Amino acid sequence: MAGSVMGKNFQISTFGESHGPALGVIIDGCPAGIGLTSEDIQKDLDKRKPGTSQFTTSRKEGDKVEILSGVLDGVTTGTPISLLIRNKDQRSKDYSNLENIYRPGHADFTYDKKYGFRDIRGGGRSSGRETAARVAAGTVAKKILDELDVSILTYTRSIGDVEIDYDRFDKSFINENPFSMPDPKASKKAANLITKAKKDQDSLGGVIECVVSGMPAGVGEPVFERLDAMLAASVMSIGATKGFEVGSGFQAAKMKGSDHNDNWYYDEDNNIKKHTNHAGGILGGISDGSDIILRTAFKPTPSIAKEQTTITKGGQNAEITIEGRHDPIIVPRAVIVVESMVAITLADYIYSRIFSDINMIRKAYSK
Amino acid sequence: MAGSVMGKNFQISTFGESHGPALGVIIDGCPAGIGLTSEDIQKDLDKRKPGTSQFTTSRKEGDKVEILSGVLDGVTTGTPISLLIRNKDQRSKDYSNLENIYRPGHADFTYDKKYGFRDIRGGGRSSGRETAARVAAGTVAKKILDELDVSILTYTRSIGDVEIDYDRFDKSFINENPFSMPDPKASKKAANLITKAKKDQDSLGGVIECVVSGMPAGVGEPVFERLDAMLAASVMSIGATKGFEVGSGFQAAKMKGSDHNDNWYYDEDNNIKKHTNHAGGILGGISDGSDIILRTAFKPTPSIAKEQTTITKGGQNAEITIEGRHDPIIVPRAVIVVESMVAITLADYIYSRIFSDINMIRKAYSK
Amino acid sequence: MAGSVMGKNFQISTFGESHGPALGVIIDGCPAGIGLTSEDIQKDLDKRKPGTSQFTTSRKEGDKVEILSGVLDGVTTGTPISLLIRNKDQRSKDYSNLENIYRPGHADFTYDKKYGFRDIRGGGRSSGRETAARVAAGTVAKKILDELDVSILTYTRSIGDVEIDYDRFDKSFINENPFSMPDPKASKKAANLITKAKKDQDSLGGVIECVVSGMPAGVGEPVFERLDAMLAASVMSIGATKGFEVGSGFQAAKMKGSDHNDNWYYDEDNNIKKHTNHAGGILGGISDGSDIILRTAFKPTPSIAKEQTTITKGGQNAEITIEGRHDPIIVPRAVIVVESMVAITLADYIYSRIFSDINMIRKAYSK
Amino acid sequence: MAGSVMGKNFQISTFGESHGPALGVIIDGCPAGIGLTSEDIQKDLDKRKPGTSQFTTSRKEGDKVEILSGVLDGVTTGTPISLLIRNKDQRSKDYSNLENIYRPGHADFTYDKKYGFRDIRGGGRSSGRETAARVAAGTVAKKILDELDVSILTYTRSIGDVEIDYDRFDKSFINENPFSMPDPKASKKAANLITKAKKDQDSLGGVIECVVSGMPAGVGEPVFERLDAMLAASVMSIGATKGFEVGSGFQAAKMKGSDHNDNWYYDEDNNIKKHTNHAGGILGGISDGSDIILRTAFKPTPSIAKEQTTITKGGQNAEITIEGRHDPIIVPRAVIVVESMVAITLADYIYSRIFSDINMIRKAYSK
Repeated sequence: MAGSVMGKNFQISTFGESHGPALGVIIDGCPAGIGLTSEDIQKDLDKRKPGTSQFTTSRKEGDKVEILSGVLDGVTTGTPISLLIRNKDQRSKDYSNLENIYRPGHADFTYDKKYGFRDIRGGGRSSGRETAARVAAGTVAKKILDELDVSILTYTRSIGDVEIDYDRFDKSFINENPFSMPDPKASKKAANLITKAKKDQDSLGGVIECVVSGMPAGVGEPVFERLDAMLAASVMSIGATKGFEVGSGFQAAKMKGSDHNDNWYYDEDNNIKKHTNHAGGILGGISDGSDIILRTAFKPTPSIAKEQTTITKGGQNAEITIEGRHDPIIVPRAVIVVESMVAITLADYIYSRIFSDINMIRKAYSK
Repeated sequence: MAGSVMGKNFQISTFGESHGPALGVIIDGCPAGIGLTSEDIQKDLDKRKPGTSQFTTSRKEGDKVEILSGVLDGVTTGTPISLLIRNKDQRSKDYSNLENIYRPGHADFTYDKKYGFRDIRGGGRSSGRETAARVAAGTVAKKILDELDVSILTYTRSIGDVEIDYDRFDKSFINENPFSMPDPKASKKAANLITKAKKDQDSLGGVIECVVSGMPAGVGEPVFERLDAMLAASVMSIGATKGFEVGSGFQAAKMKGSDHNDNWYYDEDNNIKKHTNHAGGILGGISDGSDIILRTAFKPTPSIAKEQTTITKGGQNAEITIEGRHDPIIVPRAVIVVESMVAITLADYIYSRIFSDINMIRKAYSK
Repeated sequence: MAGSVMGKNFQISTFGESHGPALGVIIDGCPAGIGLTSEDIQKDLDKRKPGTSQFTTSRKEGDKVEILSGVLDGVTTGTPISLLIRNKDQRSKDYSNLENIYRPGHADFTYDKKYGFRDIRGGGRSSGRETAARVAAGTVAKKILDELDVSILTYTRSIGDVEIDYDRFDKSFINENPFSMPDPKASKKAANLITKAKKDQDSLGGVIECVVSGMPAGVGEPVFERLDAMLAASVMSIGATKGFEVGSGFQAAKMKGSDHNDNWYYDEDNNIKKHTNHAGGILGGISDGSDIILRTAFKPTPSIAKEQTTITKGGQNAEITIEGRHDPIIVPRAVIVVESMVAITLADYIYSRIFSDINMIRKAYSK
Repeated sequence: MAGSVMGKNFQISTFGESHGPALGVIIDGCPAGIGLTSEDIQKDLDKRKPGTSQFTTSRKEGDKVEILSGVLDGVTTGTPISLLIRNKDQRSKDYSNLENIYRPGHADFTYDKKYGFRDIRGGGRSSGRETAARVAAGTVAKKILDELDVSILTYTRSIGDVEIDYDRFDKSFINENPFSMPDPKASKKAANLITKAKKDQDSLGGVIECVVSGMPAGVGEPVFERLDAMLAASVMSIGATKGFEVGSGFQAAKMKGSDHNDNWYYDEDNNIKKHTNHAGGILGGISDGSDIILRTAFKPTPSIAKEQTTITKGGQNAEITIEGRHDPIIVPRAVIVVESMVAITLADYIYSRIFSDINMIRKAYSK
């Protein structure tokens, strides 16, 4: 329980500091027989890469992944898959001015309190850079979900007070704008908003939404390991998240039971359907066969160029101006991170589903 | 990974169906040397008990707890603490009319899909009655937190659209109204709202807020086991929750970095303080020494007397009217459940804190 | 990690002191759809019960089991199965004379050191009585193994220096002698040996052997969770065990590679066979389809009537004579305990097997 | 539960195939503030390295370790420590002749059965080469034990039928002979025995013994996580082990209670001592303050040059002659592996000890 291991049967273990030699992940529990290449992973890593537009940091992070084990001739072997991402130029900068000061909104103070001291180089382990390892693991998880025809769509729902309009929802536009918004008009407004924030030496937050399609009904667990609870944990383990919702979310608190309950019906092909999906695809912690819908809120980037007041380790009140190239908003680069965490959690649950019914176990063993 | 075990070092395992012989919990990992009596637990269980006001179900749930192990002469021995709560009159009712029909908003359909069939008696394992075991474990967790002067205050923040006004916040009033609201005026409005909902054969939702005081800075983990992520999981594992927030929550998504960052300062006694607490007491997944603040949204009770449309297992569209005595709102009885889940999670983290620093380990072993 | 929880997917959590109100176990992870009654469990518990012959303690332990959850109409529901065994007359004796003295060969001293004090009544949690909960869980595990046609035969291989002769191996005789020996002649010798030890106010040890048949090839894990390693842990978690072997065991250390290697061949029906089974059915931590064979050594019962020297807690050297009715040998009653631990471990691995191959996962999900 | 992750609070995750790009380990749960350099690790890795004498394989395994994270300026930071060992010349050989044949005594058949196919290059994940990652993690574990003055001595107790004589026990000689034997005379006999085995194209087994000194009393857990049970699991997770003993081991089965019980006494300085140590330093699963003594048996190397009979995957009986440079005995190179596994397990328990007593927790948190 030191924080960098996750999952029970599809289990990942990550490592790496922002400015150390490398980042990476070991995935223990990927079944044998699945096609996997470093190109598959690279494609997802590139979605997280900075510098792809004027709205993200212009820092260079190559993020080239190397597969060290667990794959033979492009197919998983069932043994641990180790993925390595070398950091580039990790010693290029002098961070000693940060050693004695606590940046507001950052984990500088809390790391010092927990460990007695901290790695000051670019935030060390608390840097958003650690999410590269999550994305790499996410690709592998999605490969497993693919085998069962489960797919995930993730996008930006809002930036600051700019929210998408579902009447204009355009799935194909998500990859065609720097904010992963499915609404061209909202995307344009967001561009203006971010441009202004940058000029003001300030930063913005936003909300990411994720929709999982094709999940069979019956996946999840009762009580502590409800599927929504575990999705909450995995998504809220991403730095800078402040909230999580499934289905109706906080809106549910203001609804009446007669409105909130999703009524069941058989459609004309005799398929089981619901008239609404306030549940967000999960009832009693278990998938109900409809889309799983979740949202998470990101705070504005804490690193801002504006002068702030803070304290030194040594006992002085102080002023701080954070230099360097920072994302004016975390959300666009976090879209693939949210998707990865959802995929990692679901891959684990796909397995656990099998155990709840002796008929599925028998079927798995049948010849 | 079957869902009813939680925690790593302070680990709990619960069991029990709504209408089976008993509910209960085993707590493995409570240190030796802490005072604990069944009266301590009973006090918390009574807060969850129905029938204490006209606004909760009039069902009788005695919920008398028996300590079966792990306590000797009123002191914990370090071995597993087993707590048993017998169900009363569990066979008093005929549930066979529910066998073939799926109640909207309930887990009937998903349990059938997961397990092949389900225990129809009062919801079986998916019943809110399983939370009694959580509350019993929560008392033990709070005993550990007491030893380190950590305390928890939990209350209802809103019912439907009635929200408390922090200018009228009265801590002492929480236990003096049936809704655990800290605002007399809001409590009165809530009473009217619920009375109306009952008359309409409908139900309401709400938001519960929880404030943890006295938590030392440095408690939590980086990456996957961030303290906020684990609190999200434990709170959202309570049935009927739809969302979770820490600190500024979803509001953070609309704020600017310069407003959201909590600026550090030394107060006149040279204590480290923050001007605001948007972080909700957690930075980088680790406690920062200020209050930990979290909120969770509950959906309206799915069991309503109003007629609803749904389906039968056998392939027919159908109508359903749910009889029996149901809570028109879950929130008031859930306050102690949220508090218990927070306590259980924090107790586990109090332990893990010790491992991150060799000096704390050395100190623990010193003579 | 407080010691009383075991398993990953078939997970058990036990509780109970020798002289507290009750013992029991929660099993989380038994699939739905398996027949289970309290009579099934009682049958195994009765094999562990003392007082069935002149060679075990004449203490009365009723050990009546009650199923509190997880079973409906004689079929498992997939939710936690809780099993309760009340202790009888737990306050019948005065143990205060043991409070200040450390019995040789017992855990009195180490419990005091670990917890600061201990439950002196009959050994508390360190009593062999806790194995009743293991046996109850073992019945459930064996029900799962039954579904896959895996069966377990467990028997006494030696008592003191009396060893069974495999030329006289008679499976049917195991349940017809008080020592569970499969050899009538050895059983008779053992009776004489134990009678003498009792007269000498002394005690004996022995070796239990276990043979698992029908295990499909391919069950187990590489590296840390090798099937033999996990069997070692589960069997050696039984009190009073001092050693564990699989297949050739310690004898392997004296053999040559050309003798030890089990040579493969196809039999006349084209089945894959091995000429020998020094591997004990496990290669590289994974089952090879032949019988899994393991052995464990039990030390002589530490409670003996003979006077011994020891110390008091208070700093004095002292003499001690242990009164009461004690087993002159633990082995016969431990046979069912060993079998239970093996079954619990295998049930967990039967699940994990499915994850290693995407084809098995696909098959489980197929319609 | 895929086999390559171990531990609860000091948790390690390993990866790597014999002939893949690299091997390595992530250690999550090493406290901050401990000195650690790659030289520390290299020293242990070199003990495992082949080619150091005529009695081990002449294969070249450079085994140069690189620290990728978790260490800053030679001190652990509390975040995951990732250690990387590149394989050299991993594609130097053609293994295609092994694709269709099952080597006796190897995991070829069982890997095929578990995963559907296997990595044939040098045994893939089932190769003894994976133990390099264990040794690297072991160094870190020993650094933690050092802080609490716990030390470990590991040596070869027997090779074939050559056993050390404790009357000639010479600790300083362990590192001065190629077999890590503490007895010059036995070492010489062993050399002759191995020379003969090599000439006969055969191999030998042996027994390794390990003595842990300085372990405080009270470390361990009751029931399933007894310290001896967990040591059994960790040691028997090393490939080629067939048995495990603690203290008196299998000999205990032939002893009488009055002989086996270790009698307590106060020595002249009023320290608590035992006249004997049949317990092997563990009573009731918890350390008693005396030396922890354990042994494990290794089978003879399965790779022998002698011709053997076996089968092909395709259904034919066949003959096989294993070429290449193989260790005629695994034991000498396994000494450091056993030590590492013991250290890794003990490091985890050192932590867990703190949780069992509220006084230790309070002390850790005290200022």
